[in-house]
Amino acid sequence: MRLLGLDPGLRHTGWGVIEVRGNRLSHVADGAVHSDGARPMAERLVQLHEGLTQIIDRYRPDAAAVEETFVNKNASSTLKLGLARGVALLVPALAGIPVAEYSTNLVKKSVVGAGHAEKQQIQRMVKLLLPGCLIESPDAADALAVAICHAHHANTLDRWQAPVAAEARR
Amino acid sequence: MRLLGLDPGLRHTGWGVIEVRGNRLSHVADGAVHSDGARPMAERLVQLHEGLTQIIDRYRPDAAAVEETFVNKNASSTLKLGLARGVALLVPALAGIPVAEYSTNLVKKSVVGAGHAEKQQIQRMVKLLLPGCLIESPDAADALAVAICHAHHANTLDRWQAPVAAEARR
Repeated sequence: MRLLGLDPGLRHTGWGVIEVRGNRLSHVADGAVHSDGARPMAERLVQLHEGLTQIIDRYRPDAAAVEETFVNKNASSTLKLGLARGVALLVPALAGIPVAEYSTNLVKKSVVGAGHAEKQQIQRMVKLLLPGCLIESPDAADALAVAICHAHHANTLDRWQAPVAAEARR
Repeated sequence: MRLLGLDPGLRHTGWGVIEVRGNRLSHVADGAVHSDGARPMAERLVQLHEGLTQIIDRYRPDAAAVEETFVNKNASSTLKLGLARGVALLVPALAGIPVAEYSTNLVKKSVVGAGHAEKQQIQRMVKLLLPGCLIESPDAADALAVAICHAHHANTLDRWQAPVAAEARR
């Protein structure tokens, strides 16, 4: 199963693709799509839309997961984050891919074991969990962390659903 | 020239289409597209996306304008508004239609003459400025107000640009 993790941001939206086989995770690719701050807002969202559409076309993930960040600094930056997250949720959904959302705390807990971890600590753990991966940017590390979080939860769901499915087949 | 005004909201996004000929405005259509609060967020954004895509396919506007509302109640509702506004800005831009943004105060000033008007006052003025229009919902009234605001500003721009263009032709 191939998972796409997304860490939305208006300027940079991080993305990371991992492969899950049973309990084994492996790194496929990561990076960030960018929007040009000098362009009108609608054009910037089109830039993010095009970038994410290309990633989905290239890596064909089976599921996507988006980080549910809240910015409390001010209403304007929260709204901007919302614009980018709208695009991050929309693009995989339009491609027919199921999209999950995870809170930042749950993502951190899944990767580092604690809900309040530093960015560097996440980066270190992502590299440890996905051997051989070179992380392009901190946004990509966060995106890979979201994908890992989804892998853990999807796995748990599978284990829960497997006996039920076996039961149904009898 | 045909203008599409949008008043974004996650549950209801109001839309209104008007026709502009010189200084004359006329009503074409209005309404609201809805998302189902019981569905996952990504699906709700797909519902808004599909609804707005249908409106654009049906009415083929030359330009779009989106209201720049800020919700300061709490970060969560501001973020939700951002998700809907992301879709409202993206859909016309993806269709190749130029998208303008106007602050709520400027929209109110263009329609009512004051930056702090009640919803009912806006609805009354929209009906006065677009004779014969029956407004489906308050969201649609706000969307028509955004379209009217854009008509005023586009008109002003035309008047500014017309002499320059005439100059250029000489």
